[in-house]
Amino acid sequence: MEKILTRRSLLGRAGLVLGGAMTLSVLNGCGDDDDPASTPNPDPTPTDTPDVGPQATQFPYQQHIPAGYQLDVAVVAEGAYHGYYAGGCCHGAYNALMKHLADTAGAPFNQLPLDFGGFGGGGIAGYGSICGAVLGGVLVINYVVPNTAPQGATPAQSNVRNRMMVELMRWYEGFAFPTYVPAAVDPKETGVTLNFGAANLPVLQTVAGSHLCHASVTKWCAANGNANPNGGDKKARCARLTADVAEKVAEMLNGYLSTGAFTSGTPNPTTTCVSCHGAVTEGDAAPTASGMSCRACHPETTHPVPHTIHSGCSDCH
Amino acid sequence: MEKILTRRSLLGRAGLVLGGAMTLSVLNGCGDDDDPASTPNPDPTPTDTPDVGPQATQFPYQQHIPAGYQLDVAVVAEGAYHGYYAGGCCHGAYNALMKHLADTAGAPFNQLPLDFGGFGGGGIAGYGSICGAVLGGVLVINYVVPNTAPQGATPAQSNVRNRMMVELMRWYEGFAFPTYVPAAVDPKETGVTLNFGAANLPVLQTVAGSHLCHASVTKWCAANGNANPNGGDKKARCARLTADVAEKVAEMLNGYLSTGAFTSGTPNPTTTCVSCHGAVTEGDAAPTASGMSCRACHPETTHPVPHTIHSGCSDCH
Repeated sequence: MEKILTRRSLLGRAGLVLGGAMTLSVLNGCGDDDDPASTPNPDPTPTDTPDVGPQATQFPYQQHIPAGYQLDVAVVAEGAYHGYYAGGCCHGAYNALMKHLADTAGAPFNQLPLDFGGFGGGGIAGYGSICGAVLGGVLVINYVVPNTAPQGATPAQSNVRNRMMVELMRWYEGFAFPTYVPAAVDPKETGVTLNFGAANLPVLQTVAGSHLCHASVTKWCAANGNANPNGGDKKARCARLTADVAEKVAEMLNGYLSTGAFTSGTPNPTTTCVSCHGAVTEGDAAPTASGMSCRACHPETTHPVPHTIHSGCSDCH
Repeated sequence: MEKILTRRSLLGRAGLVLGGAMTLSVLNGCGDDDDPASTPNPDPTPTDTPDVGPQATQFPYQQHIPAGYQLDVAVVAEGAYHGYYAGGCCHGAYNALMKHLADTAGAPFNQLPLDFGGFGGGGIAGYGSICGAVLGGVLVINYVVPNTAPQGATPAQSNVRNRMMVELMRWYEGFAFPTYVPAAVDPKETGVTLNFGAANLPVLQTVAGSHLCHASVTKWCAANGNANPNGGDKKARCARLTADVAEKVAEMLNGYLSTGAFTSGTPNPTTTCVSCHGAVTEGDAAPTASGMSCRACHPETTHPVPHTIHSGCSDCH
């Protein structure tokens, strides 16, 4: 019974910080209201089968993680780099994080398919949508972190899941990839013509300005001699990017697991745009729904009308 | 033992169609190489615990679904509509599909958290990325459908998972949402000022041209009197869209489960663009990595240079 008692005491401890059902809106979200994941399972312990241990249905899994647990960031990052060559960017990030959690935190992470992330490579099935490494990270954050906002919680303790996901996407949009230097180059890393050595990495780096695979890869390829998006150089870049993303996720999870709180570190670049294009609009500015960086798809030069003709915008421009 | 024998015979049957480890590339994918999900579990039956039944780690789950199984599309669609009001678009689609599978196909679907999709609302945590209903559908497809391409398989039997995901995103980009008419209006459907009656729905419909929440919602709001992206009309639209998407996923899954094959129905609108902007480029055209519709973010008027100055493109333009 020792394990069971330990888990129950953990549940009690977690309940102090994370209990309650009140939710707050973080962004001008679309349909993220009344989030069921914000409502804790009223009886997360399996009372009729007391020796069964944590179950995958008892979600999210922060409740099952022992106090003081921390992911080994270096293990996760190196695993993500090699995981890219085993199954793509989403598999790399997802598998490295989930396998590490399964190996070191145990149930219920070890009850889930560790190869679930193969679908996300190349922006989901090669479609160029959300970067698969980011998506893999989002899924792992979702497994671990509740999105509660209990009465009396500080802003940093509230809606952590959503704020952590937004931070990951926003950080990605402004980060100069790649930075990771693998401990051991993967044997599948072939066809590389550029110098991915640590000293030369800054020469190869680009800021995507978008969390979409399409923009991220296309921009990097254009900046590196129109590299082939299916070639060895692009793969070497994305393998290191996968490690960078997995490392960021592991660091965010460690911060949350050690403090029960999370503070976003990346400024919101949409503030100026949504000051006119928010839910309540100014003049003829169309309302919009986005937290993404605007300028990747809407450069200043393509703004359909000069800002000055908008009424009420002079305080922004 | 009857159930176990039935499952083993099913596994044998599925193996005939889905076994083997060879993979084919569908798109010019980025990092979706050597997909581990394409490699069947060498021993998917739990031999040391013969009475344990299907386990969530035995992935993907087509192997556990009885022959002749079909989802009830109407139940899924109505559930998705109401699920939107319970937890957003991703929860609506994910929960309706997964709960129906758990209720009617059983293990291992009933071993997973049915509230996993709350994170995806509003394009992941309200960020405006991939439409949450699409993402929820993608995750369910991923649970069910293998991405194998065994020797001797026809193109329609190969890489079904990836092709089904691409079809969902591409279909979404060209579909006029919303079309679903709920059997019963949800009690949470408040603040509606537009006429969502069946006869008037075509007046409200827009084609997003993108599978991103941001573009989909913003375009619909602009076409409907600059509707508030957080208001009751937008929510009524997205609830019906969630049902439309879940219905599409259920229909695709039913087609695959009944035939072991899948044929995409939506033409690829990027063909003209990637004829110059593919991995092997023409003239000074930048290589690109995308299956997404190009024109949502890159209208003809913003093409940086006239097409005619490209060499070798006269066959396309």
